[in-house]
Amino acid sequence: MKKQLMDMLESRKDEMIEIRRYLHENPELSFKEEKTAQYIADFYEGKDVELHTNVGNGYGIIVTIQGGKPGKTIALRADFDALPIQEETDVPFKSKNDGVMHACGHDAHTAYLLVLADCLIQLKDSLSGTVKIIHQHAEETPPGGAKSIMESGLLDDVENVYGVHFFPFHPTGVVSYRSEYAMAGRSFFKLTIQGKGGHGSSPHLANDSIVAGSHFVTAIQTVISRRINPFEMGVITIGSFDGKGTFNVIKDSVVLEGDVRYMTSKTQQVIQEEVERIVKGIEAQFGVTCELEYVPDYPPLYNDPEVTAHVVATLENSDAPEIKEVKEFQMLSGSEDFAYYLEKIPGCFFYVGCKPKGVEDAYFNHHPKFDIDEDCMLVAAKAVGEIVCS
Amino acid sequence: MKKQLMDMLESRKDEMIEIRRYLHENPELSFKEEKTAQYIADFYEGKDVELHTNVGNGYGIIVTIQGGKPGKTIALRADFDALPIQEETDVPFKSKNDGVMHACGHDAHTAYLLVLADCLIQLKDSLSGTVKIIHQHAEETPPGGAKSIMESGLLDDVENVYGVHFFPFHPTGVVSYRSEYAMAGRSFFKLTIQGKGGHGSSPHLANDSIVAGSHFVTAIQTVISRRINPFEMGVITIGSFDGKGTFNVIKDSVVLEGDVRYMTSKTQQVIQEEVERIVKGIEAQFGVTCELEYVPDYPPLYNDPEVTAHVVATLENSDAPEIKEVKEFQMLSGSEDFAYYLEKIPGCFFYVGCKPKGVEDAYFNHHPKFDIDEDCMLVAAKAVGEIVCS
Amino acid sequence: MKKQLMDMLESRKDEMIEIRRYLHENPELSFKEEKTAQYIADFYEGKDVELHTNVGNGYGIIVTIQGGKPGKTIALRADFDALPIQEETDVPFKSKNDGVMHACGHDAHTAYLLVLADCLIQLKDSLSGTVKIIHQHAEETPPGGAKSIMESGLLDDVENVYGVHFFPFHPTGVVSYRSEYAMAGRSFFKLTIQGKGGHGSSPHLANDSIVAGSHFVTAIQTVISRRINPFEMGVITIGSFDGKGTFNVIKDSVVLEGDVRYMTSKTQQVIQEEVERIVKGIEAQFGVTCELEYVPDYPPLYNDPEVTAHVVATLENSDAPEIKEVKEFQMLSGSEDFAYYLEKIPGCFFYVGCKPKGVEDAYFNHHPKFDIDEDCMLVAAKAVGEIVCS
Amino acid sequence: MKKQLMDMLESRKDEMIEIRRYLHENPELSFKEEKTAQYIADFYEGKDVELHTNVGNGYGIIVTIQGGKPGKTIALRADFDALPIQEETDVPFKSKNDGVMHACGHDAHTAYLLVLADCLIQLKDSLSGTVKIIHQHAEETPPGGAKSIMESGLLDDVENVYGVHFFPFHPTGVVSYRSEYAMAGRSFFKLTIQGKGGHGSSPHLANDSIVAGSHFVTAIQTVISRRINPFEMGVITIGSFDGKGTFNVIKDSVVLEGDVRYMTSKTQQVIQEEVERIVKGIEAQFGVTCELEYVPDYPPLYNDPEVTAHVVATLENSDAPEIKEVKEFQMLSGSEDFAYYLEKIPGCFFYVGCKPKGVEDAYFNHHPKFDIDEDCMLVAAKAVGEIVCS
Repeated sequence: MKKQLMDMLESRKDEMIEIRRYLHENPELSFKEEKTAQYIADFYEGKDVELHTNVGNGYGIIVTIQGGKPGKTIALRADFDALPIQEETDVPFKSKNDGVMHACGHDAHTAYLLVLADCLIQLKDSLSGTVKIIHQHAEETPPGGAKSIMESGLLDDVENVYGVHFFPFHPTGVVSYRSEYAMAGRSFFKLTIQGKGGHGSSPHLANDSIVAGSHFVTAIQTVISRRINPFEMGVITIGSFDGKGTFNVIKDSVVLEGDVRYMTSKTQQVIQEEVERIVKGIEAQFGVTCELEYVPDYPPLYNDPEVTAHVVATLENSDAPEIKEVKEFQMLSGSEDFAYYLEKIPGCFFYVGCKPKGVEDAYFNHHPKFDIDEDCMLVAAKAVGEIVCS
Repeated sequence: MKKQLMDMLESRKDEMIEIRRYLHENPELSFKEEKTAQYIADFYEGKDVELHTNVGNGYGIIVTIQGGKPGKTIALRADFDALPIQEETDVPFKSKNDGVMHACGHDAHTAYLLVLADCLIQLKDSLSGTVKIIHQHAEETPPGGAKSIMESGLLDDVENVYGVHFFPFHPTGVVSYRSEYAMAGRSFFKLTIQGKGGHGSSPHLANDSIVAGSHFVTAIQTVISRRINPFEMGVITIGSFDGKGTFNVIKDSVVLEGDVRYMTSKTQQVIQEEVERIVKGIEAQFGVTCELEYVPDYPPLYNDPEVTAHVVATLENSDAPEIKEVKEFQMLSGSEDFAYYLEKIPGCFFYVGCKPKGVEDAYFNHHPKFDIDEDCMLVAAKAVGEIVCS
Repeated sequence: MKKQLMDMLESRKDEMIEIRRYLHENPELSFKEEKTAQYIADFYEGKDVELHTNVGNGYGIIVTIQGGKPGKTIALRADFDALPIQEETDVPFKSKNDGVMHACGHDAHTAYLLVLADCLIQLKDSLSGTVKIIHQHAEETPPGGAKSIMESGLLDDVENVYGVHFFPFHPTGVVSYRSEYAMAGRSFFKLTIQGKGGHGSSPHLANDSIVAGSHFVTAIQTVISRRINPFEMGVITIGSFDGKGTFNVIKDSVVLEGDVRYMTSKTQQVIQEEVERIVKGIEAQFGVTCELEYVPDYPPLYNDPEVTAHVVATLENSDAPEIKEVKEFQMLSGSEDFAYYLEKIPGCFFYVGCKPKGVEDAYFNHHPKFDIDEDCMLVAAKAVGEIVCS
Repeated sequence: MKKQLMDMLESRKDEMIEIRRYLHENPELSFKEEKTAQYIADFYEGKDVELHTNVGNGYGIIVTIQGGKPGKTIALRADFDALPIQEETDVPFKSKNDGVMHACGHDAHTAYLLVLADCLIQLKDSLSGTVKIIHQHAEETPPGGAKSIMESGLLDDVENVYGVHFFPFHPTGVVSYRSEYAMAGRSFFKLTIQGKGGHGSSPHLANDSIVAGSHFVTAIQTVISRRINPFEMGVITIGSFDGKGTFNVIKDSVVLEGDVRYMTSKTQQVIQEEVERIVKGIEAQFGVTCELEYVPDYPPLYNDPEVTAHVVATLENSDAPEIKEVKEFQMLSGSEDFAYYLEKIPGCFFYVGCKPKGVEDAYFNHHPKFDIDEDCMLVAAKAVGEIVCS
């Protein structure tokens, strides 16, 4: 069956490109992917599969392909949401939706997986076990779609889960991976500091929230520099200090928003406790009132070492000429809600190179000029196909 | 002549109130007082005076009343601009202009001075010397109108200058003053800190302008606490920290705006030098680029001690029953562009109580519910009348 | 009697110098002035006065001179302790006590007052009322001698109290004064911050007290810059940050010591509350334990306006040619425990110029090269004599 | 030969213990190990080896054992200095030198290596290649002994270098290792901040070095939190803030000492540049003068991956029953001057468990109660013996 699958995939390479370009031209924001979900559902129309739509907290779709032979139940996932970015590329299939762009390659994730799924459906009599295709909505925007899809119960019988991300770290043909902790977990917090407004010339009659906020920012640095294990990755970024006011009026309140990254839940816990502690300290120190909303968001992404070893061995032994190199890659500070699947189901999330040909420094994911080498889709399809057949 | 003047003023008290109510109902923002200026010019229409309009950088008006007898040339000033405040009083003559309000009493300043000027015009044959009436635009908004009126040359021959402000510190009948430094000088600064944006999870590839800005705010506190003479008044308020961004993106730049107060030019100089020094320090420390715009604005207001002593003596000896008490008052942290006149011309700027009757804690100037006891206008008119006749 | 007194003082000018030089050569530290007190007691030996020694918490001496005529009971005070300073002058009567020096002029204070007292004793039949001479120990070192002398009850009947300080602000002949608040009050605090020691390479296992201490120092600046009325004088100096340790060991605890100045008890109260608040904030923020000892020390010195006006009038009308000028002086940031007398007894503490002749920039009090023009003692004796006779 | 060597080592286990106890009883501080070096030299007295004493910047000793067969030249290193710690154990062979203790196990390092060297000397006819024994002085105190021994040229022909450290992370029998970067590099810095002293009540006439120093400490935290790659280990500890002074005197200067750790020279470079930048920033910001001495000290310790793999394979295949487990271990934040050998010579530094039997939480190296299970020495001797024979 593997040989058949590989040949089918190869022959439908153009279709992948076509689908991807259609999706690229019609991007939709997280939680608003109504037409994209319809497009995907239409694709499966009339095929012999079980289809669940509107799964989880949005437009998630689960397609169950029941193989003709006994075997494991595995899941394959591709996400399909786009980003609030104004596209700046010159491709002919440029986004038609103003301010929305498939700048993270989810169009290509979906394209390769639709074609792969269709091939598997056609070959399902020869297929051992069951393959669940997860077309996931809303990966880019917390709380994301993955968590709710896990909670739907539709994946309860899944034994292994796999996912792929296209990154222009490497050229097409390079597959890279990292066993165990591979991508950072992320938390979000929002801190409102309420002081007391007043005339700029009479600070003693007011309580300056900008001064309190600035002391918070300087104090929060010590969490990374002094409270976490220096061998552990940890980041706190205050990405927003909203204290716009009038020069001669003491600002009564400011709102700060922060982003936190870590590779282990231990570090997440330490950082959260310390941020909460410093907030209490700022209240005590400046007599302001603080309101802290702290949301531990996507967890660190943990690839099961055994599953990962199996993936690596399978791909290293693949006959597919498109898979030219399989190599270990560094930990990434980015976050992925695929981590929610991996919290419960042993699996592997790996990376497929998509660096455009002839380009030295590719624009990276989330850049308005992000672009991919479309050949990467066949690499992903074959790599995941190999895993399905292994 | 003084007796005549006092009687005339007393008889025209209602007219003052009427004019004030008209102006209150039709407030205009600083530098946009077109109709107010026209109203004032119309008032002098056909009277035997020299009238200059559009004086300075706006709608300033100078009216010269040539007395029939030899004597000093003095100037009397009232400002006529309103504030960008939505009125919240219940008076029947409430502002008709949405979001604009005479919340600082300039309507009353103008009303009393128009009536006083007209009385002086009628009595001008008996008047010793020359009285220049300054109807000043744009007191509320830097750079203000006073500086440009001084630069017009129309006041070059003025020997003394007088001005009055209504404050509800005291009830109607109380005149208060402070010799020498009486009101604070003010500077404004705007600081743009340019770092380098980037993804929240990779601080080492970016340069966080919010962190640099927060260190600026904490460092700037030491100017007041360590660099100025502790016996000198000095305030630095950062009224605006514009760093609104996205929680997971490192902010590339922030803009801070500051307000500075001082009672002497020495302190102004020290503060400006130290702010400039700290800006350079932040650049060196964090590798950011800073752009600082620092504008020394209205200077400290300095009442000439001799002129003030003369005013005090004159008012203490006044027969006017409306002037019930003359007393020294504390220094004020507010600023006034009347200070520009006093930089060059010896004079006195003093305060007339206007606290509404029966009110314990009056709403203060610039409050949306600010109101006055309209009897205060006759007090001001008689007090300034006494000075003109003295 | 005044004429007699003035003549006597003039004739005993050399004796003042002699006494001052003896004391200068034999300085003793605060609370250790055993021999100085003995010298003073010996001076009064056999004279017709009531003598109390060991008054208060040290070697204080009160001498009561009962006048022959009815009148007020007043007190005159001179302090007699020296400083822990190594003298660097070249005077022939240089300090014989290593590391101890009369660098604040208390030798001269005592010298003029001994001679004045002796003259008053000789003239006591003509003296109206009672004069209590306070020879005070330990002015330089908190808690000082004044407070305990007040508590002794020996001054309970005193109606006015006077004191003089020699300062080289002005040349000999100039007497200066300030009515109402004239010299700053002072508090002292000691803050121990207890963290947890550890190896420099493992901050997460320790709790760095140096970091907490540094954040305390930066935060404490906001008390002056934001919490007190900008028209009020206030200073907080952290004079000691004792955090000496080993470069590669995280410091478990640091000790900070602070000095606080203010001109009103309101400001003292605000500063104390805010320091206490910030200490609690540092505890909450960094999880350290803090121990704060905060001691409000000498209060602001307040000269009674009526008494001061009387002193000024008396000295301005004096016939004494040595008193050349009487003028108002600025507030001083230094502190004086004479303030304790003035808290209970209306009085006046004023300054007598002692700038050495021919010197442009005199070394100031507490400098190792501090020196005085010894003619200043006759000025002080005559000035205080005038007040006694007034 | 290996069988013979292992038997000999086993038979001389008691001698190792005896030597170790002698050294433990007679500890000497870094660079002062005169008697220890003499003891070692005496041990080799009369044996057929080449002996170099006083190697490098202290009492280093190099012993060259020329094997009878051709082969590689390798080096084995043990350090022999003690620490300035007052021993608090109850062992019968407790330190006789007050305040000096072998609290890091260098006594045991030396003991096992002396016996191993002697065995190799006896078996040298069967030995392939050359073994250079490095008895190194002064590992504990920068600049350490290793760097100067490398510079002596005596190791220029060495092809591989090996070293062992006893740690109570694991019980006796466990050998642990880490390939590539294994122990942190270290830098030291000393910063003198020169402000201007003055009276505590007059901050504007002085320049407060404690405030500048505190801002340095808060700013330096941002180097770790914002400037280095969050996946890289980095630590800056300010271990000493020497600002002891008098509460009411503004401190003219403070001295800070810092310790820096990192796992790569890239991170060292970033930290050094940023510390230098912040120092310049503090100068610019506060108008103080700074003197910075920054000494990059022991580099990160890098175990050659090939050599390490060879060591691991050799030990895993060892017949020695004492070697019970060989396992990978985490990176350590401690530093070792063995890193200097590894900068030039491929080699491996690994750890031998020495946790005392029956103890749950062992006292760690550098603790006054640090103790070892003396059986660890035979483990180290056999492990290194295996490597020599491999």
